[in-house]
Amino acid sequence: MGERIQWEVMAFQWLPAAVEDRLEDVDTPALILDLERFEANLQRMREAAARLDVRVRPHAKSHKCPEIARRQMGAGAIGICCQKVTEAEVFLAAGIDNVLITNEVVGGRKLERLAQLGRRYPAARLGVCVDDVEVVHRLAGTCSREGARLDVYVEIDVGQNRCGVATPAEVLTLAHAIVACPSFTFMGLHAYAGSAQHRRRVAERRGAIEAAARKADEARAALSAARLRCEIVTGGGTGTFMYEAASRIYNEVQPGSYVLMDTDYARNDQDIDAPRFDHALLILATVMSVRGDRATLDAGLKAFSTDSGLPSPAFDGWRVANISDEHTVLHRIGDRPSLHLGEKVLLIPSHCDPTVNLHDWFVAVREGTVEALWAIDARGAVF
Amino acid sequence: MGERIQWEVMAFQWLPAAVEDRLEDVDTPALILDLERFEANLQRMREAAARLDVRVRPHAKSHKCPEIARRQMGAGAIGICCQKVTEAEVFLAAGIDNVLITNEVVGGRKLERLAQLGRRYPAARLGVCVDDVEVVHRLAGTCSREGARLDVYVEIDVGQNRCGVATPAEVLTLAHAIVACPSFTFMGLHAYAGSAQHRRRVAERRGAIEAAARKADEARAALSAARLRCEIVTGGGTGTFMYEAASRIYNEVQPGSYVLMDTDYARNDQDIDAPRFDHALLILATVMSVRGDRATLDAGLKAFSTDSGLPSPAFDGWRVANISDEHTVLHRIGDRPSLHLGEKVLLIPSHCDPTVNLHDWFVAVREGTVEALWAIDARGAVF
Repeated sequence: MGERIQWEVMAFQWLPAAVEDRLEDVDTPALILDLERFEANLQRMREAAARLDVRVRPHAKSHKCPEIARRQMGAGAIGICCQKVTEAEVFLAAGIDNVLITNEVVGGRKLERLAQLGRRYPAARLGVCVDDVEVVHRLAGTCSREGARLDVYVEIDVGQNRCGVATPAEVLTLAHAIVACPSFTFMGLHAYAGSAQHRRRVAERRGAIEAAARKADEARAALSAARLRCEIVTGGGTGTFMYEAASRIYNEVQPGSYVLMDTDYARNDQDIDAPRFDHALLILATVMSVRGDRATLDAGLKAFSTDSGLPSPAFDGWRVANISDEHTVLHRIGDRPSLHLGEKVLLIPSHCDPTVNLHDWFVAVREGTVEALWAIDARGAVF
Repeated sequence: MGERIQWEVMAFQWLPAAVEDRLEDVDTPALILDLERFEANLQRMREAAARLDVRVRPHAKSHKCPEIARRQMGAGAIGICCQKVTEAEVFLAAGIDNVLITNEVVGGRKLERLAQLGRRYPAARLGVCVDDVEVVHRLAGTCSREGARLDVYVEIDVGQNRCGVATPAEVLTLAHAIVACPSFTFMGLHAYAGSAQHRRRVAERRGAIEAAARKADEARAALSAARLRCEIVTGGGTGTFMYEAASRIYNEVQPGSYVLMDTDYARNDQDIDAPRFDHALLILATVMSVRGDRATLDAGLKAFSTDSGLPSPAFDGWRVANISDEHTVLHRIGDRPSLHLGEKVLLIPSHCDPTVNLHDWFVAVREGTVEALWAIDARGAVF
């Protein structure tokens, strides 16, 4: 793509820190990864997966970072998910050899890029979802020309009201179209109940997943009656993966946020059996102006997203009063200690995925010292 | 910075289009710049500035793009504003020779980077704001060591309740500290009434700027009484710049969004004398799934910001029902024509600045054909 373009790339690259820097010397705003909490989150998911006897395929759309994907694989993940072809490109290039695009891919350039990835990494498993037979045929033609093989999943709508087919009959039509294509391996069903993830009450989330599992089971039964092998039923996020696993209909789950966590997920009521994930993702900001009971930080809408609410100070005595593009204004609550000009403070983001997508680096910190910078290579991988 | 880091940069670079592509062949989600509207916006600002007899220093935090800055300079701008030292770095490197950082700079690394920029571009005017005397002294020391010269402005708080000093006495203290430093040229006052920009009623915006101008005038009078020359009073955004200019207290205005426009600014009641700016910034998305009266687009929170509301379809008959990280779900209103799988559609963003900051390229389009790709070099320039 783009061969005819004359363009000038200045390729500025700003680094927030150097290895061995103290946290208070990291430039701001910076995305901090607390390594102890991060590693504990990985371990808790590994233990939960073993207990639940389910394959874990973490969603890499949350972190967009090959180094985190490698560590998830090291902690027992069987592969990763992503949402975009360009994300898949990043993770395949980084050596992750099992990538599922949990999304439909529509458009000539995207289908070509997908097929080219399949050809370029013949030893990897690369999967994609479909919900339209026309796309199956177009992708099959492109893969055939490229000599590429792909794993293909039918997406069913289990309450998200977004993409996916609604009935077992549609699943069958698509599955027959897939198995008829020599470039494809029909793998099974993608059945993600996204809108269930942030229902606050345990009973609501559990009920939504029971309904989703029933829909997935109907589709699976229809495939079985048609003698079409459905190897995988995949879905589930950080808020519900225990219920998908417990259903025994799903045999693979896709939690993403667990490894970073945010305040939106933390607001869910917790099931007594659920692993507790800690906030490993933080925003470091500098106090850049102090006036009485007001302190202004040098981080705003270009350092964290607010679609799921304001970020929360990771310290007591101050609340977020308002936010603009490059600033956050804090107000003091009661007579708590003041903040000082130049002081570095931590905020907990409300929604990890779009917050990470604003940054180029995770600053990985252990006991107050920078241990590594991890590139967010799939930042901006929207295509 | 970062000399000790061992890091691996994959440097993926995805291009949404090639020159001469038709709009419908541009990959999605993409940031589209409608060149005819963009050029008309530039021209309208040029005419308004001439009529109002005011210097225009457009705010480049909105577009982060050297090519747009060059065109603003070509249309009469005397320089640009930005918010971050790393943004200034991008625009100075691109040949923009008059850059004002309309913000305080706090922290050792940032002050060093700022002074280094001053040294590296001795023929350029590089300005910065201060609201604390300790920062003045630290910056002076750093500039002295680097052999750098900077223009320095005192920020006064004219109702934003964020940064800036509150009283003429504080202005005087800072101005005396600035003029005492041989590395600095004291330029005047930065007096930006940010919270006035989106007050919907004309009378509210006009009243807020009258109050801001009175505060600026008090500070200017105090400087004059102390025989301190105040050459520039600068401030004003797209929502109010006519009022700053009309005050005759301000002699420089800083509109940013006018050149791109968004639905948040479009919701302001318009003054009869104000220039009308059109939506030159659009998001192109692909219809990736259609089910009855529901269509799903391949653009979500990683393609536009929602801090100022949902994006608006640039076509009739459909409304945004919900948004997630990579998707927008549209619902059909009444019996309007259907959307088709693979169709490309345009959305108008609610807030241009954080939307632009998600993308690497403007796809500059004229009469349905791609004329150029303009790099958003200051994307991610948060430091």
